[in-house]
Amino acid sequence: MSEYIDNHDAARSVGVVEKRTFTFGGEGDELVLESGRTLGPVTLAYETCGTLNEDRSNAILICHALTGDAHVAGVHSEDDPKPGWWEIMVGPGKPIDTDKYFVICSNVIGGCMGSTGPVSPDPKTGKPYGTGFPVVTIGDMVRCQRRLVDHLGIGTLQAVIGGSVGGMQVLEWSVRYPDRVRAAVPLATTTKHSAQAIAFNEVARQAIMADPKWNGGDYHETGRPEHGLAVARMVGHITYLSDESMRHKFDRRLQDRHQLSFDFEADFQVESYLRYQGNKFVDRFDANSFLYLTKAADYFNLENQHGDGSLVAAFARASCRYLVVSFTSDWLYPTYQSRDMVKAMKKNGLDVCFCEIEAPWGHDAFLLPNERLNSLIAGFLGRAGEEGGACPAGFTNGGSCDAL
Amino acid sequence: MSEYIDNHDAARSVGVVEKRTFTFGGEGDELVLESGRTLGPVTLAYETCGTLNEDRSNAILICHALTGDAHVAGVHSEDDPKPGWWEIMVGPGKPIDTDKYFVICSNVIGGCMGSTGPVSPDPKTGKPYGTGFPVVTIGDMVRCQRRLVDHLGIGTLQAVIGGSVGGMQVLEWSVRYPDRVRAAVPLATTTKHSAQAIAFNEVARQAIMADPKWNGGDYHETGRPEHGLAVARMVGHITYLSDESMRHKFDRRLQDRHQLSFDFEADFQVESYLRYQGNKFVDRFDANSFLYLTKAADYFNLENQHGDGSLVAAFARASCRYLVVSFTSDWLYPTYQSRDMVKAMKKNGLDVCFCEIEAPWGHDAFLLPNERLNSLIAGFLGRAGEEGGACPAGFTNGGSCDAL
Repeated sequence: MSEYIDNHDAARSVGVVEKRTFTFGGEGDELVLESGRTLGPVTLAYETCGTLNEDRSNAILICHALTGDAHVAGVHSEDDPKPGWWEIMVGPGKPIDTDKYFVICSNVIGGCMGSTGPVSPDPKTGKPYGTGFPVVTIGDMVRCQRRLVDHLGIGTLQAVIGGSVGGMQVLEWSVRYPDRVRAAVPLATTTKHSAQAIAFNEVARQAIMADPKWNGGDYHETGRPEHGLAVARMVGHITYLSDESMRHKFDRRLQDRHQLSFDFEADFQVESYLRYQGNKFVDRFDANSFLYLTKAADYFNLENQHGDGSLVAAFARASCRYLVVSFTSDWLYPTYQSRDMVKAMKKNGLDVCFCEIEAPWGHDAFLLPNERLNSLIAGFLGRAGEEGGACPAGFTNGGSCDAL
Repeated sequence: MSEYIDNHDAARSVGVVEKRTFTFGGEGDELVLESGRTLGPVTLAYETCGTLNEDRSNAILICHALTGDAHVAGVHSEDDPKPGWWEIMVGPGKPIDTDKYFVICSNVIGGCMGSTGPVSPDPKTGKPYGTGFPVVTIGDMVRCQRRLVDHLGIGTLQAVIGGSVGGMQVLEWSVRYPDRVRAAVPLATTTKHSAQAIAFNEVARQAIMADPKWNGGDYHETGRPEHGLAVARMVGHITYLSDESMRHKFDRRLQDRHQLSFDFEADFQVESYLRYQGNKFVDRFDANSFLYLTKAADYFNLENQHGDGSLVAAFARASCRYLVVSFTSDWLYPTYQSRDMVKAMKKNGLDVCFCEIEAPWGHDAFLLPNERLNSLIAGFLGRAGEEGGACPAGFTNGGSCDAL
């Protein structure tokens, strides 16, 4: 995602949080992946905030998006200037209120933010897996998260919440472990990538694999494919914004100049921004991880994996309440894809609230400050105890919000 | 553009055409470019079909899109299986009827299809210019085309027609040389790139420049940056299609397999298609040329270059009739951009017909068979002789067509 809002407010922050790890699947107990291959041991990096109540019924699992991490809220030390990626949403008195809920967030497997992934040492060789790492799926990620939830002694999650590829994990949780999820909030997501979404990911992968430094994925001793990864990130970035938001943010304004350069420097602010984002990403992310995570997103297909080709059949397995949110200008996972999932949920008689939020910021909108989103999530979680209650205020009245 | 329709029909073809060249701007007479740099000698590759009438009043100039060439219609020999890129539009009895009109099409400067560009020898060194080639603009391209039109002894063009970057040239002609153009047909185009369009071009350029074989543009003896150019083309391709057309064409269908591969081969047809298009492009196109042509498109800004920042002022210079056509699913140059230019034309009291054609095929729609487009162009050209006549049938009645 393109931007994390740095609005750390100590008074409303969860404060200092600790990055923890949980390891399972040691020798003889390896995880059998959906591909049929095995993986073990598996380490998950995770963080928690808030307090688990006595009957362990107030846990909320947050699933991060493509290149996110477990650091959802708070800071890692008193003088850490950078709060978690969803600081605006998670904290005391915030929509996901840590005075009420115990929040868990873990880095996905295949990632490079502390959980087992292609940068981890292969126990057979002691060297990074590289492309020897098995291809993992959204289902595999969720199965690992379930192990973590078990480990924390939590039976049923009060809610699972996430946007984009995190939203895929939310959907997967709801149909794979229906008795472990009371409520699910998939934001700005889809039950399967369109051809266009696959195409963008494939171009990004090709940019990485075209970099000779990628070296078949074996670059840990020879130098990383930084140019390829930067280009890959730039492709992604365009899809996280919208035509309108890019016009608003950059239009055709020039960068540090009054005249066109008539060379191949970055003339326009948008060029400079993309180059900066690409280069910044290279510092924090592993190229192979990017390949694995985009592949997992492309493979995700809820109806095939759980409904034998029928989305209605897939949701027949679910029993939780849903809050589905899309954004008008999100062209990566357009609203029609949310409507399709909502229809399939409703055909199963599930309790579904759906809202398309008017927002010009493109796919990234779910990460940006939005009062509407805040009130929807807070309202939806607030009625968690009630059975069969109405959707939160605004759903049935607003033009684009409806209970369906 | 993604596809050329191979529907060569000998009976309705212009038959064998010859690629010609015209050279000007020799020593002491170099072209002074908009950047202030000079270029010379300049060669334009061009083709013509149809017959110039006695008073030289029936000439139509066709401007090709980004990576196109002068070979607009017909074949290069009797056994040539591949007709020109707009064979469906240009020929005897076709919408641009070569029984009536004398059609000219030339390769743009900066290109690599026979006109002077970065692959041409720099007269100072005898070696390819590479990035020593000066950055050229749409205005520079059009000024060269005017020299060709002069050379052919043609005063006023009956029409200038083109789509996409070709449409930019059409607009440029109409305001730069108002007394040389009677009618202009800009299709699926814009008066200036949006930030999003610049962003896609910049990613494509970065993909090329990230390829170590690009070598600062000096690769003619060391091997071409094929991987980078292929990725650049893949990026472009996605923008030429639409979400809907990609779903229709590929959806999530697998390529030559029944199961996911769980590796990084092309699982999906859309991946295979993009890889194929990328690789095919490398065979016919020069990487530096791609840099120069995308830069020219990004620089194009009709209101800045001819209206001191006002589009209305820019079109105050024009006097021709216009047929402006956009396509509903073109998200590279969306209809709102055509509407903006039409409004500015109308504010100058110009004779403008505008139609947004309902088509799911994205930006590429202007190159694909479309009866509506055919009848619009044929109708518009048909009333060429009439002064102040109404728009062709269909403009004022169709839902999305209007005379404004």
